[in-house]
Amino acid sequence: MIDLRSDTVTKPDDTMRRLMAEAEVGDDVFREDPTVNKLEAYAAELLGKEAALFTTSGTQGNQAALLTHAVPGQEVIMDEEAHVFVYEGAAISAFAGLQSRTLPHQHGQMNLETIKNAIRPEDVHYPETGLIWLENTHNRGGGTVLPITYLQEVRRIADEHHIPVHMDGARIFNAASSLGVDVKEIARNVDSVQFCLSKGLGAPVGSMLAGTEKFIHTARRKRKMLGGGMRQAGVIAAPGLYALQHRRNRLKEDHEHAEMLAEAIHSYTDLTIRHEVETNIIVADTDTSSRSAAEWVRTLSEHGTAIIQYKPQALRFTTNADVSRTDINEVISTLQKLQEENG
Amino acid sequence: MIDLRSDTVTKPDDTMRRLMAEAEVGDDVFREDPTVNKLEAYAAELLGKEAALFTTSGTQGNQAALLTHAVPGQEVIMDEEAHVFVYEGAAISAFAGLQSRTLPHQHGQMNLETIKNAIRPEDVHYPETGLIWLENTHNRGGGTVLPITYLQEVRRIADEHHIPVHMDGARIFNAASSLGVDVKEIARNVDSVQFCLSKGLGAPVGSMLAGTEKFIHTARRKRKMLGGGMRQAGVIAAPGLYALQHRRNRLKEDHEHAEMLAEAIHSYTDLTIRHEVETNIIVADTDTSSRSAAEWVRTLSEHGTAIIQYKPQALRFTTNADVSRTDINEVISTLQKLQEENG
Amino acid sequence: MIDLRSDTVTKPDDTMRRLMAEAEVGDDVFREDPTVNKLEAYAAELLGKEAALFTTSGTQGNQAALLTHAVPGQEVIMDEEAHVFVYEGAAISAFAGLQSRTLPHQHGQMNLETIKNAIRPEDVHYPETGLIWLENTHNRGGGTVLPITYLQEVRRIADEHHIPVHMDGARIFNAASSLGVDVKEIARNVDSVQFCLSKGLGAPVGSMLAGTEKFIHTARRKRKMLGGGMRQAGVIAAPGLYALQHRRNRLKEDHEHAEMLAEAIHSYTDLTIRHEVETNIIVADTDTSSRSAAEWVRTLSEHGTAIIQYKPQALRFTTNADVSRTDINEVISTLQKLQEENG
Amino acid sequence: MIDLRSDTVTKPDDTMRRLMAEAEVGDDVFREDPTVNKLEAYAAELLGKEAALFTTSGTQGNQAALLTHAVPGQEVIMDEEAHVFVYEGAAISAFAGLQSRTLPHQHGQMNLETIKNAIRPEDVHYPETGLIWLENTHNRGGGTVLPITYLQEVRRIADEHHIPVHMDGARIFNAASSLGVDVKEIARNVDSVQFCLSKGLGAPVGSMLAGTEKFIHTARRKRKMLGGGMRQAGVIAAPGLYALQHRRNRLKEDHEHAEMLAEAIHSYTDLTIRHEVETNIIVADTDTSSRSAAEWVRTLSEHGTAIIQYKPQALRFTTNADVSRTDINEVISTLQKLQEENG
Repeated sequence: MIDLRSDTVTKPDDTMRRLMAEAEVGDDVFREDPTVNKLEAYAAELLGKEAALFTTSGTQGNQAALLTHAVPGQEVIMDEEAHVFVYEGAAISAFAGLQSRTLPHQHGQMNLETIKNAIRPEDVHYPETGLIWLENTHNRGGGTVLPITYLQEVRRIADEHHIPVHMDGARIFNAASSLGVDVKEIARNVDSVQFCLSKGLGAPVGSMLAGTEKFIHTARRKRKMLGGGMRQAGVIAAPGLYALQHRRNRLKEDHEHAEMLAEAIHSYTDLTIRHEVETNIIVADTDTSSRSAAEWVRTLSEHGTAIIQYKPQALRFTTNADVSRTDINEVISTLQKLQEENG
Repeated sequence: MIDLRSDTVTKPDDTMRRLMAEAEVGDDVFREDPTVNKLEAYAAELLGKEAALFTTSGTQGNQAALLTHAVPGQEVIMDEEAHVFVYEGAAISAFAGLQSRTLPHQHGQMNLETIKNAIRPEDVHYPETGLIWLENTHNRGGGTVLPITYLQEVRRIADEHHIPVHMDGARIFNAASSLGVDVKEIARNVDSVQFCLSKGLGAPVGSMLAGTEKFIHTARRKRKMLGGGMRQAGVIAAPGLYALQHRRNRLKEDHEHAEMLAEAIHSYTDLTIRHEVETNIIVADTDTSSRSAAEWVRTLSEHGTAIIQYKPQALRFTTNADVSRTDINEVISTLQKLQEENG
Repeated sequence: MIDLRSDTVTKPDDTMRRLMAEAEVGDDVFREDPTVNKLEAYAAELLGKEAALFTTSGTQGNQAALLTHAVPGQEVIMDEEAHVFVYEGAAISAFAGLQSRTLPHQHGQMNLETIKNAIRPEDVHYPETGLIWLENTHNRGGGTVLPITYLQEVRRIADEHHIPVHMDGARIFNAASSLGVDVKEIARNVDSVQFCLSKGLGAPVGSMLAGTEKFIHTARRKRKMLGGGMRQAGVIAAPGLYALQHRRNRLKEDHEHAEMLAEAIHSYTDLTIRHEVETNIIVADTDTSSRSAAEWVRTLSEHGTAIIQYKPQALRFTTNADVSRTDINEVISTLQKLQEENG
Repeated sequence: MIDLRSDTVTKPDDTMRRLMAEAEVGDDVFREDPTVNKLEAYAAELLGKEAALFTTSGTQGNQAALLTHAVPGQEVIMDEEAHVFVYEGAAISAFAGLQSRTLPHQHGQMNLETIKNAIRPEDVHYPETGLIWLENTHNRGGGTVLPITYLQEVRRIADEHHIPVHMDGARIFNAASSLGVDVKEIARNVDSVQFCLSKGLGAPVGSMLAGTEKFIHTARRKRKMLGGGMRQAGVIAAPGLYALQHRRNRLKEDHEHAEMLAEAIHSYTDLTIRHEVETNIIVADTDTSSRSAAEWVRTLSEHGTAIIQYKPQALRFTTNADVSRTDINEVISTLQKLQEENG
């Protein structure tokens, strides 16, 4: 089965497995795991931030960020399809006590005027606006990338109102690769970034949260409350560090594969892709298709390709490290064959 | 000053003041205040519900309802301009731990298909949908009324998914009056209703929450936690009971006044009203006007009429018990005079 | 029935009722109720604080204080029988997300060494200590008064650790009266105070929260979230202001009555009072009595006196404004008669 | 350095490291990691429960249990030194909104009468009692074991009041080993159990939560909110499963080592151990010693043994898998030598 459901499904390769087995470890709750310490220092340096924290998932990194930036009764401005709103079990409200002010977006970009108008003035009826939240690349938008100029403008609005900005950068290295910039150029525009070791980079487990020393000091306490304080965590930090050091460059392959696939979808199917294919995600709408989303999932599965239904009328194809060019060509052949059959 | 800012500004009349002074009272935390008990029984009967609870504000009634219907980590479907989302300091998330799933609306009506799609399927990533929230009349929609058939259709969707429905009926008697139906016809479609004694009905303080015996039993505990357990509360329940018994019929006067005023706005100004004027609220947009919203507020104030700026480009006029037909005619004259001056 | 169950049961007198009927009012959410404004200014001045806020209950004042002083995940040091822990429905944890660190006490006084040891050092496992909480007079301790020197020592500990101190002073005027000091001498030792208008002072409804301008500004927002923002609240502020101005002096009568009653309990019953009777509360233990607590409540009720069972083996007698010296003498006669009957 | 600070410091052995490297994995969020699935099934079976869940820490298992058993505004009965109260950053109140009702204890046992009295009767002022919490073995009590008869009596009280019971069994296998019973005999008395793979069992990371199918289904959702949903988690589940299968028997060695050490402390020092040494933990009080706790930590460290100061006047020694009999004999020699030096 060629698995295009997500880039989370990738399995650790032999090098990573060896690194796990050989990892130097200690008790990370006492800050004595040398591998975790090395990973945290490397991640901070790479992002151009003062400090970083290893978490067991992107959700945990995001939640720790919320708990650190904001206090209950504040409002967080975000786009209405943000992962933190759609996929994190309402923890933002249940644990952090925050109200999500969800705005419309185009491929992850909220209109700047709309952001400004959403910032609450002082009034006894209103929550304070406590945080602006960006997702980059934007998952439900189709793996789309926020332009640097857009980040700069959001930063300017935030500064005017003394509001911090967090980036859910689960796939920030896909964004950097697509833009052809150092990831620091992205990260400098926001106060904190969460990114995943376990998606395109291919590590088995884990994410990082980066920000100022002070921010990470508090986030570490919040991580403990979330149950993210681990003991000999070096065994999973080791493949994470390797992935971060050696697997960033291969993301462009995933992007090329996505482009190839998108072209084939355009040529051989009645599905419609309504976004630029900038990274490793394709969201293909089925409203123009004779097959429903469920039928597409079933049919492709019968032909050895796994994808997911993403919205009532959309499919998601996600290229990843475990999908080779040969695999992609096979999927393309399948699409072509299906077209001929329906001829 | 003719005060059209809100219907919350009305002052108690001489009868209400006399009733306060004469109220039979007791300690309501011990359930020994006969006047509160009478008010709660009357309100329940009037709405066709098993029981009711006296709260110090509509916000407190709404929050008690949220705390009773739902548990943290659930999602509440509501329109994106609902009072509970815009004006209650994010207490829905801060205290009840709930995520607001805000949908677009037309005069308070969310599209039924959109509601259905917003109900979350079972998935470890998703919050459960715990409650559907309706506001009737709809404040920011322009005091508009939800049709009975609409309520019935929302009820059907909710029943299919075993989700309770709450109505923020702060102005439910305006709705009933406008529709010409017994308020029970509205309330029967929802599990719980909050309505205010202190808006169009003119009581100085207080709101009611109505529902099943079991629901109100729990809501009473939540009210205590919110600090709404009062002692000799009969002194404010007495004018509330009077208002509920004797002031419902006069709401149609407020509605007539609003219609007169709306006609004058249409004839004498370049403001635009983009909703039916069904009750006592007029939202007039300034995007078509040569005056900004702030200029309108200032100009009318100089001519003895108080209104509020409601949105960046909108004004709200709210007729109420303290504004007589003579007052309305005076406001109309003012609008006419302003037109002539601008020539 | 002579009602000694609580001082919350007192009913407003004719003056208070007249003041309600005549109160000048406005919309307090807009800060336009002149009577509320007067009450808040008077209360602040009286306590020697910058500002004060009218709340609908002591619980609401306490909760607003918690929500203003502290953030979720902090710990509040308090005695293990504090009202906020025992009687406020766990709102401290449910709404404010705070952990109560409950310490043993003697008549409301926690050991100073124990307080110091309870303050948490910096460690990733520990909550921060966010607040120290005192109750004065101490209800379950038997209406006992915290000595000024004790307050000063707690203040010194708090200052050393930069921790604010709140006083649940529901009955602070009983404390001031008992100590024979200006209430400012008590209040100056703490950052914020909540006190009730509806207990010994006899107003029908309401409490006050006092502190700095900045503190009260934020507390006002929290009160709104709790549903404590009322409209023409002047109608209940008026009797509250009167009670505060004119009823403080009469508390010493309640104290004399309690002393008379305590002496009679000592002389005529096998109940044991294990605290000084310093104010208007007597907690009488039944472990030395042939009657159980429930039997005492029933027997006295049959003789026209209402008291409450307070703990599995204790009764509470609370003198109050609606209990005259004649009433007290009648209760004493009852106790004497009961002794003779059992004789 | 011989590390007796905790049993969390143990490092994975070669077998565990090999198992990590060879683990069969999948995406556990999709429930497709065969090693995690095997671990969860094995743990459930071992404890005699229907289902189990892999978490990244004991804290996360405990918090997921709280979030599943109870709702905000309830009270949890626990001993006043419970790990969940002392060491989990007040997450119980911050995230789960629960009030901790902390009772005195003797080596982890709360008095049964005190438990009964702490269960709240129905009253609008009171929180409901939502859960009873036991810790076994009891960490701060000195690694002491709750007798089976005690568990049965707590169970009986809980059943009478329809309250669930959770066991923080971080070291439950130490308890089972000490009692010489199957762990099922312990677990059958409680509704849910959390136990750690990373303490005495020596796995690098992870804990398990066990209970009914329904309970674990909900706990899985809560774990996701806490950020505990991992991807190829099999890499850490593999050594966890091995530890659970093969390392339970060696706990009795740790217990023997602790006994040897306790005897030496008794013979050669002026420290006092005020509990039975039943498992792998010794809490030694310094109030009888000429050295302070801090001095003991420093002196032993200079002689190559690491311990921790546990309370202002107590030390903790914890035997563990990485401390051999030779090591223990060396620590004993050190104690003997120190005595001789002090003459």
